[in-house]
Amino acid sequence: MGFEPSARAQELIGRVELFVRTEIEPVEAELHAAIRVADDPWQPRPELEDLRAKARELGLWNLFLPVAEPGNEQYGDGLSNLDYAPIAELTGRSFVAPYVFNCNAPDTGNMEVLLRYGTPEQKQRWLEPLLDGTIRSAFCMTEPDVASSDATNMAATAIVDGDEVVLNGRKWWSTGVGHPACELLIFMGLTDPDGHRYARHTMVLVPRNAPGVKVERLLPAMSRYDEPFGHGEVSFTDVRVPAANILVGPGRAFEIAQGRLGPGRVHHCMRLIGLAEKALELALVRGTSRTAFGKPLVNLGGNRERIADARIAINQARLLVLQTAWLLDTQGLEGALSEVSQIKVAVPRMAQDVIDMAIQLHGGGGLSDDFPLAAAWTSARSLRLADGPDEVHRGVVAKVELAKYKQEA
Amino acid sequence: MGFEPSARAQELIGRVELFVRTEIEPVEAELHAAIRVADDPWQPRPELEDLRAKARELGLWNLFLPVAEPGNEQYGDGLSNLDYAPIAELTGRSFVAPYVFNCNAPDTGNMEVLLRYGTPEQKQRWLEPLLDGTIRSAFCMTEPDVASSDATNMAATAIVDGDEVVLNGRKWWSTGVGHPACELLIFMGLTDPDGHRYARHTMVLVPRNAPGVKVERLLPAMSRYDEPFGHGEVSFTDVRVPAANILVGPGRAFEIAQGRLGPGRVHHCMRLIGLAEKALELALVRGTSRTAFGKPLVNLGGNRERIADARIAINQARLLVLQTAWLLDTQGLEGALSEVSQIKVAVPRMAQDVIDMAIQLHGGGGLSDDFPLAAAWTSARSLRLADGPDEVHRGVVAKVELAKYKQEA
Amino acid sequence: MGFEPSARAQELIGRVELFVRTEIEPVEAELHAAIRVADDPWQPRPELEDLRAKARELGLWNLFLPVAEPGNEQYGDGLSNLDYAPIAELTGRSFVAPYVFNCNAPDTGNMEVLLRYGTPEQKQRWLEPLLDGTIRSAFCMTEPDVASSDATNMAATAIVDGDEVVLNGRKWWSTGVGHPACELLIFMGLTDPDGHRYARHTMVLVPRNAPGVKVERLLPAMSRYDEPFGHGEVSFTDVRVPAANILVGPGRAFEIAQGRLGPGRVHHCMRLIGLAEKALELALVRGTSRTAFGKPLVNLGGNRERIADARIAINQARLLVLQTAWLLDTQGLEGALSEVSQIKVAVPRMAQDVIDMAIQLHGGGGLSDDFPLAAAWTSARSLRLADGPDEVHRGVVAKVELAKYKQEA
Amino acid sequence: MGFEPSARAQELIGRVELFVRTEIEPVEAELHAAIRVADDPWQPRPELEDLRAKARELGLWNLFLPVAEPGNEQYGDGLSNLDYAPIAELTGRSFVAPYVFNCNAPDTGNMEVLLRYGTPEQKQRWLEPLLDGTIRSAFCMTEPDVASSDATNMAATAIVDGDEVVLNGRKWWSTGVGHPACELLIFMGLTDPDGHRYARHTMVLVPRNAPGVKVERLLPAMSRYDEPFGHGEVSFTDVRVPAANILVGPGRAFEIAQGRLGPGRVHHCMRLIGLAEKALELALVRGTSRTAFGKPLVNLGGNRERIADARIAINQARLLVLQTAWLLDTQGLEGALSEVSQIKVAVPRMAQDVIDMAIQLHGGGGLSDDFPLAAAWTSARSLRLADGPDEVHRGVVAKVELAKYKQEA
Repeated sequence: MGFEPSARAQELIGRVELFVRTEIEPVEAELHAAIRVADDPWQPRPELEDLRAKARELGLWNLFLPVAEPGNEQYGDGLSNLDYAPIAELTGRSFVAPYVFNCNAPDTGNMEVLLRYGTPEQKQRWLEPLLDGTIRSAFCMTEPDVASSDATNMAATAIVDGDEVVLNGRKWWSTGVGHPACELLIFMGLTDPDGHRYARHTMVLVPRNAPGVKVERLLPAMSRYDEPFGHGEVSFTDVRVPAANILVGPGRAFEIAQGRLGPGRVHHCMRLIGLAEKALELALVRGTSRTAFGKPLVNLGGNRERIADARIAINQARLLVLQTAWLLDTQGLEGALSEVSQIKVAVPRMAQDVIDMAIQLHGGGGLSDDFPLAAAWTSARSLRLADGPDEVHRGVVAKVELAKYKQEA
Repeated sequence: MGFEPSARAQELIGRVELFVRTEIEPVEAELHAAIRVADDPWQPRPELEDLRAKARELGLWNLFLPVAEPGNEQYGDGLSNLDYAPIAELTGRSFVAPYVFNCNAPDTGNMEVLLRYGTPEQKQRWLEPLLDGTIRSAFCMTEPDVASSDATNMAATAIVDGDEVVLNGRKWWSTGVGHPACELLIFMGLTDPDGHRYARHTMVLVPRNAPGVKVERLLPAMSRYDEPFGHGEVSFTDVRVPAANILVGPGRAFEIAQGRLGPGRVHHCMRLIGLAEKALELALVRGTSRTAFGKPLVNLGGNRERIADARIAINQARLLVLQTAWLLDTQGLEGALSEVSQIKVAVPRMAQDVIDMAIQLHGGGGLSDDFPLAAAWTSARSLRLADGPDEVHRGVVAKVELAKYKQEA
Repeated sequence: MGFEPSARAQELIGRVELFVRTEIEPVEAELHAAIRVADDPWQPRPELEDLRAKARELGLWNLFLPVAEPGNEQYGDGLSNLDYAPIAELTGRSFVAPYVFNCNAPDTGNMEVLLRYGTPEQKQRWLEPLLDGTIRSAFCMTEPDVASSDATNMAATAIVDGDEVVLNGRKWWSTGVGHPACELLIFMGLTDPDGHRYARHTMVLVPRNAPGVKVERLLPAMSRYDEPFGHGEVSFTDVRVPAANILVGPGRAFEIAQGRLGPGRVHHCMRLIGLAEKALELALVRGTSRTAFGKPLVNLGGNRERIADARIAINQARLLVLQTAWLLDTQGLEGALSEVSQIKVAVPRMAQDVIDMAIQLHGGGGLSDDFPLAAAWTSARSLRLADGPDEVHRGVVAKVELAKYKQEA
Repeated sequence: MGFEPSARAQELIGRVELFVRTEIEPVEAELHAAIRVADDPWQPRPELEDLRAKARELGLWNLFLPVAEPGNEQYGDGLSNLDYAPIAELTGRSFVAPYVFNCNAPDTGNMEVLLRYGTPEQKQRWLEPLLDGTIRSAFCMTEPDVASSDATNMAATAIVDGDEVVLNGRKWWSTGVGHPACELLIFMGLTDPDGHRYARHTMVLVPRNAPGVKVERLLPAMSRYDEPFGHGEVSFTDVRVPAANILVGPGRAFEIAQGRLGPGRVHHCMRLIGLAEKALELALVRGTSRTAFGKPLVNLGGNRERIADARIAINQARLLVLQTAWLLDTQGLEGALSEVSQIKVAVPRMAQDVIDMAIQLHGGGGLSDDFPLAAAWTSARSLRLADGPDEVHRGVVAKVELAKYKQEA
């Protein structure tokens, strides 16, 4: 690989790989089966909590943390994006591994926001227990009643009223809100409708149990609820929290959201690459172990070509994500604006196609829950919408391209 | 349309359309919601049974029945494939409409088999109540332990023992087996391993409650169980039924299966075309009613192009299915062998793509159960595997193409 | 085929097929080779003229002529679009067959315009020798200096000055202008810049040798000049012709162009389907006659799947064109507006892909002139631009779709 | 870029870019126009030779040369594959730039073969004038009468007869053979039909003017002859050359060919990436400078999405080639076997699609010779066949993938 991780990262990568392959993957099918038949699938499973404890003990905990910046040193010195990327890929092989390592979205993004923009009080109250894994969090941005692909459509309100801020509105696809330990919601709402397009909204830290907060329902994606994490539709009715819960200040939400995007998308994309790799492995196992018309499946028709195309697609996608991580590390978000959108377009589509191929090779079983492929497909498909739909990201890439051309002209 | 239905069919089409649009579609979302929260989602819903009664009263019942053949006249004179196709398309707009009209798979195929190959006794015992809608049936062919894309891989056994036949083995994706009224299983098993490749297997009529028959579990496709119909994994352990339950005779299963294929695939494909039309309609509704970046969604980026491509794809696919129906009517299965496989490849892929486009235009909602799109996608995706995977059907098409060339050379 | 040609058409189809297969296809490679090495490739080849004479003698001449309308009966009663379509498909197998049968673009479209919109004098002077095959014609619409995908961009002028009309401007891709017998140019130019968007332009009949008309150069498409027909860049400098040469009247050009579109696009598309069929045949011949890695090429990797996909794509495309022809026949252009654009999008893309597949199966030879595949590809690719680019036609399809939805809503 | 070139390479890259952009690109259209109308397009153009002289003077000459190995030091110390890759990309922007820098295929590959496998005498006689640019060479491997995708099909013979070797057979697509300075043909022929599959063939250095060598014709690819280089069909009839002209020894041809593959494919692919970048630039220029329906073309329909997709595809492809170059540098061909095939599949397809998009945005002009796009498309399309068709390379990638899996299992 041309993008070499540091020695420190290499050591961690090795240990994460070992843990994922020997501790998590072998028990994952059983774990999901147990959740499916549980009386209350939203209750944390002890076997999962044990894995978390073990990972933490081994120091495989909060590895997503970025390189320390002035004022953050006390929370540890994390890895560069390029160093963390292969770890994210490995955790992507399993649906629970990110949680096991306390590296799952949206908590990672929320922790980064707090780390970067939180006051000491906000950090103490929310960041520390999140890093400690004792509480969970959700991010409440997307709304059911408007096209959220245009984030400025956001209609829920956050009105400052003296030393309080009053929240109203309805959010959905708030991931993680189903978990019993979810105690923090980061809410984004409209404060100043007359302000500049990107200075109208405010981000507010809201206790899950604040009066007026109600999880109306949990939403399935392709019939899947992702217990015990879940995606909620949450209503906010005259929710009052102290103005001190505002992040940075009124009207600063887009500014904060911006800083949250780059690494988060690299993480999502690297996890999908891990998932695509896993799907390709499963396809190879199935394709070499089953026989039809007198041949192993892989030797029938275009199957080998499809396997080759999957390998080529995965490799190209991974390199683009690593390049993006490297750009984020060396030039910041400004220098990686197009690339962050490029991976957001390229990787979920690639993963969706590779996983679809693996499903096809598995026959009916591929659609069932006997293999992690149906869940994997849903995960890839969802990311073509979550964090901005493909179309919006293509728009960003085209815009940068056109601007570059104008400069050159 | 160049493929004009007969006057009799046109009248029926009009009435089916009215019934689907005014009686079924308006209540469908509610019905599915009720099933999702039901204590026992496998119990037939009274509102659904009422719709059935009403459809039956209006004569919109068993419309799938083929044109009468000598010996079958007492079961009524049905429609040609070309005449029934638009009806199947209309019923495809809804997941319950085929059931409402007593036209759902696999019962339709099973009834055709009985109609065509059943003895008078078999017809009286099984066909009549099926036509009457008082019992349901399943078809037990695919097996979990072999690549069933090669049907000759089938390993479950049907051994004739005196005037009985003894069944052993495990089947899955037996659709409809979850319904409480399912009383008949058509089982396909290996009888003579040394016979000609296509004369080894036997088809047997098995009462659902025969000792040794066990529904091991119901299988989800993309996490969906399709209650109250379901797809079962069924074990057969020393199941003994009278040899009189054999269809036609030992070793005749492939011959029977063959006759079941053509119309069944036309039905499946026409239903998917109805589903794709519905997805396109939903995309248009959503695309014109939601706004982002100051424009209705349809006017953003490539959305209009995608709508055009969807229309073009649907129209082409429909014509190919109608052509196939017309060939089946005029030349029989032999004259439509390639076309039956062509539609099986073309239509599910088309539907999958159109539905995926509609999901994307719906944003996160498209993946939820607030719209029928996630279920529609699953339906289209499943049919790329059910009734033979794409790859096998492409093989048939290529074979016919090569044979034609050889004849011409 | 569900779209049955009439008995009269069937007889003609049989004879055209025989002529194409026994008279034209066997000599075509030689003919093209002779043109390539000719001193002047633009001179008509005697062997080609002999074929024309023979076709005419057999009555296989001007078969494109539409059904007679009042006032046109003296030019014969032609075929419906649906009846002519299979003939167009057959002629599409060869690059010279349309010319042999006097059925090639743009002469067919020009003759239709004259037939429908010409005065008796215009018909006598231009239509009769065109029908007689003694002269040829070109259509001068597209311009090099504007995006002609938006036809209202057209900037060349046609100014009425007393009883003359004065033409200025530059046109390109005027097909057929290279042929020595080309004597008529139909010129389209701006007359009234302030008129309604579609009432600004005028169509004028211009003798090829009028002073001020200059063929600046002949244009290659993918390096191919299509001798002896050619595509010209033509300048018009103060060209004066009698106002009697105006078709219908000033400002009526779009109205006339509209009537020319439907059948012309059906012809183009059916010819491409014939070309795609020929490419598939060549692929089958090559694929079964050459061996690599111990197998005939068709049995390697995904080749059979690609052949199946080609068959499926051709069949769907053909049905859509036949459906469009049938709609044109029964409902006129208004009733086939979307379909005409649908085939214009679907068919060239399909043909391009099928031919590309055939090229790939031929190896390096596929790109050379040893096979008609490189020329075929160019033909299909060109039609993604000629007569309106894909994007414009997708726009029409989407517009119709949206309008339909609004009506229904 | 994560794959940083060395300081030495960076300096060269800067100078090559300046030379390409200021000396070559501005005159290229004129140069091609002059070749098209030349009496003898196969004669070297003085303006091109002047550019060569200038490039050489500036030290921009033979930059393709690999890092020196023991025994080769006298021919200079070249660049690593990773360092040369960006230079190859820049030269790919122009069809003559590789020649200007004495870096064009097949001379580069032939020089590498001589450098690595030549005897001192062979080097003196052939390598030195090739490095000097005074002679040119061709590579004679592909044959018209067999499927050359399977190189072991090669049927031309190279029979050792005492101290001579006798060559018979017919080759085609021998690139460069049309150039008047072409004096060396590297011929590959069957010596020992009973040897091991990869030890049957021999590589022989043949003077262009040896008795019995005849260039039968020059071949067009998509009607393009690539003057003054050309692709020849060459017959060898009892051609006798000294056995000392054999490279390495009888039966060693595959072994030699193998070593020639990796870097050559990296060069080809990087040049195509340069060409795709150029096509994207042209698309942006056209798309922002022309207007239709009241908007710049880029703002119509899906055009911005297509531009974004092109950028994403180019970036992914470039990274995969750089990764491959880096693997070749650090692990040799063995360590890059799959990757070399991966880029051979991915890059030409990507370039073909990007260029096709650019053609479409240019309208009819895109197919003409007014823009380099038609030639660019041909170049990309040809590389899907040259140096092994896509299908063979997909086979290699799948094989490596399956082997990896078996090791892990």
